[in-house]
Amino acid sequence: MGMTMTEKILARHAGQAAVVPGQLIRCRVDLILGNDITAPPAIQEFERIGRPVFDPSKIALVPDHFAPNKDIKSAQMCKTVREFAAKHGITHYFEVGRMGIEHVLLPEVGLVAPGEVIIGADSHTCTYGALGAFATGVGSTDMAAAMATGETWFKVPPSIRVELRGQLPRWVGGKDVVLTLIGMIGVDGARYQSLEFCGEGVAALTIADRLTIANMAIEAGAKNGIFPVDDATIRYLAARVERDYEVVSPDADASYVRTVVINLDDLEPVVALPHLPENVRPAAEVGDIVIDQVVIGSCTNGRLEDLAQAAAILEGKTVHPRVRAIVIPGSQTVYLEAMQRGYIETFIRAGAVVSTPTCGPCLGGYMGILAAGERAVATTNRNFRGRMGHVDSEVYLAGPAVAAASAVLGRIAAPWEVAQ
Amino acid sequence: MGMTMTEKILARHAGQAAVVPGQLIRCRVDLILGNDITAPPAIQEFERIGRPVFDPSKIALVPDHFAPNKDIKSAQMCKTVREFAAKHGITHYFEVGRMGIEHVLLPEVGLVAPGEVIIGADSHTCTYGALGAFATGVGSTDMAAAMATGETWFKVPPSIRVELRGQLPRWVGGKDVVLTLIGMIGVDGARYQSLEFCGEGVAALTIADRLTIANMAIEAGAKNGIFPVDDATIRYLAARVERDYEVVSPDADASYVRTVVINLDDLEPVVALPHLPENVRPAAEVGDIVIDQVVIGSCTNGRLEDLAQAAAILEGKTVHPRVRAIVIPGSQTVYLEAMQRGYIETFIRAGAVVSTPTCGPCLGGYMGILAAGERAVATTNRNFRGRMGHVDSEVYLAGPAVAAASAVLGRIAAPWEVAQ
Repeated sequence: MGMTMTEKILARHAGQAAVVPGQLIRCRVDLILGNDITAPPAIQEFERIGRPVFDPSKIALVPDHFAPNKDIKSAQMCKTVREFAAKHGITHYFEVGRMGIEHVLLPEVGLVAPGEVIIGADSHTCTYGALGAFATGVGSTDMAAAMATGETWFKVPPSIRVELRGQLPRWVGGKDVVLTLIGMIGVDGARYQSLEFCGEGVAALTIADRLTIANMAIEAGAKNGIFPVDDATIRYLAARVERDYEVVSPDADASYVRTVVINLDDLEPVVALPHLPENVRPAAEVGDIVIDQVVIGSCTNGRLEDLAQAAAILEGKTVHPRVRAIVIPGSQTVYLEAMQRGYIETFIRAGAVVSTPTCGPCLGGYMGILAAGERAVATTNRNFRGRMGHVDSEVYLAGPAVAAASAVLGRIAAPWEVAQ
Repeated sequence: MGMTMTEKILARHAGQAAVVPGQLIRCRVDLILGNDITAPPAIQEFERIGRPVFDPSKIALVPDHFAPNKDIKSAQMCKTVREFAAKHGITHYFEVGRMGIEHVLLPEVGLVAPGEVIIGADSHTCTYGALGAFATGVGSTDMAAAMATGETWFKVPPSIRVELRGQLPRWVGGKDVVLTLIGMIGVDGARYQSLEFCGEGVAALTIADRLTIANMAIEAGAKNGIFPVDDATIRYLAARVERDYEVVSPDADASYVRTVVINLDDLEPVVALPHLPENVRPAAEVGDIVIDQVVIGSCTNGRLEDLAQAAAILEGKTVHPRVRAIVIPGSQTVYLEAMQRGYIETFIRAGAVVSTPTCGPCLGGYMGILAAGERAVATTNRNFRGRMGHVDSEVYLAGPAVAAASAVLGRIAAPWEVAQ
């Protein structure tokens, strides 16, 4: 019987000819990721094991969540990570000022390649599936064990085939694709399954769009999301990855639990209303929802292409007096490129905050926390109750075009209400 | 008997021909300032009075300390300020994204003019003395009363004459002048007195230098610091202030409790060691003090000239691997101009964080809090124990040139160790 992309990658990393859904396997891992929130408990567990790290070049540590240190506690946690990195000679420790949001940063610096198995103590580790890797979030204890052994265990997930057809209309992006998908199948629609994207529509998506889509696979409950490797992927990797990698394709007779078809041509800009990512509606149809804050950034939508879309809307416009608009480039590289292209100037002239790269507001950390009764439109990935602050605040998820248009009009808006 | 600058301004605002030190007077005020930390308690008191504000165009509210909201509590406090501003039609409410650090912002937007009396519920309100105003910090209750009445009370301070001679050498700036002064007279050397600057050395100081010097008058315990108004002041004001203002000069027979002479030619870049601003030493002579963080910004040194100096040092250099360097432009305008001049690109290429304008780390708020045992060189104004984070962390105060050089070398350094 044929295998899906995920099954093939897992089989090869388990040293087996084939694996089947439901099977428990032990896999070697190519990269292990931790951040300033999740690495400290992993480090504590790891030090209890009392062994050296299996390979200091295969661990990435990124203090991005509450850094630059938002308080004494986060300062102590970052210090724990920093000291661990120094002690064990971790190659890919990214210090504040030389880093980015982990899931923007790692693909950017070439730490992700097709066919690899990547685990991260962060739920949005699934982002890397955009480049044809198997990538998934794990707990801090699993991270600790993997740092010692270079291996981890998985239950092989069944796969859902997501067939993309056509091309995205103007102002519709990867975020609208994945929100629409989650709206169709629900937040548990892919629970412990793999979302395997395919179809001629894939070629029409930018790598940034694919990263956004794979990033939110977890929001449908998926174990991972994975894209085929095409010319666009190869071009993206050319400047970044020097090591050999294996491009994995699904077998023609691979077995899927289900197929979901999305016609990209039919999509429109959407928002996910509070308090679940599955509460998806067209942005043009939600009515007059007045907002207090807009956040453009995060591991979901903090890439150059996202800022380009926001800048296209905000160019020559001003943020509504009622709104705090917070733009967060996903990495120092994104920041620099956005500046060179004039986007940062556009944002500042429009009256937006431009923050240093950080996860900050997405998970209620800092840099834009909501008071009681406040509403935000955010390009982040979760709109759970209280996610961005007070338990009586609301988050509306959207792509950067809707977020920027909403910032200008002070209410949830479709992009074409502001720009051509 | 003649009067000092401070006495003259206070007399005119008290409607009296003359005042003398120690006299209790009631003065009308030209501007009242509050921020996101100090305005909420003032607002609470004010609402208890139950009157309208005396003049909505003479109150400035700047959410700069813990904004963009660092947590739910700060979000609630900012909301209180925002709603008060809307309710009372406050003209000079500065929303997040359209603001700056209060003491950088207010002079920049023309809210400070010579001869005016400005009170602010913030201790560094004394900054505005650089432009020949009488400006001082007050408590939130005094702010509340003044918002209702347009008046406040003062005990007229005696004045210290600070005579500046000569010119500043290369790499020596306003911060070195004021730290040297505080080193000379101590942190209580001017307690409830006015520091009145004079002498031919004044003309050689930029307005930015004067703002830095006046800003730290409070760190010598002074009620206010005040500079004469010269051509440089008039030029600075020309593009900013349209209203009439009165240039006040001290009388030739004004009475001072003391004269302090500073030869600018003799100054060198200094640092104030923990835990008092008076612990001043030449930066070149402190020995090998290894550091973890550098902060360049704040109401003391967050102006374009400060960033220019830091950029001159950091251009083509990289921040030491051990150091987190955090650069915080003092306002959106400073940010924009620094970007246009290439400074922001220099900082990011060097591996520094560039933050949105905020007081953040200066007072241990967020954006760079120190863990136990960590040391920072900061261009901020206070190095009290625990000021920037953990009670066992240390802050070394310096100007932007020393801070930038220290960022490159990973230890406290003189500017000429890094740049010509």
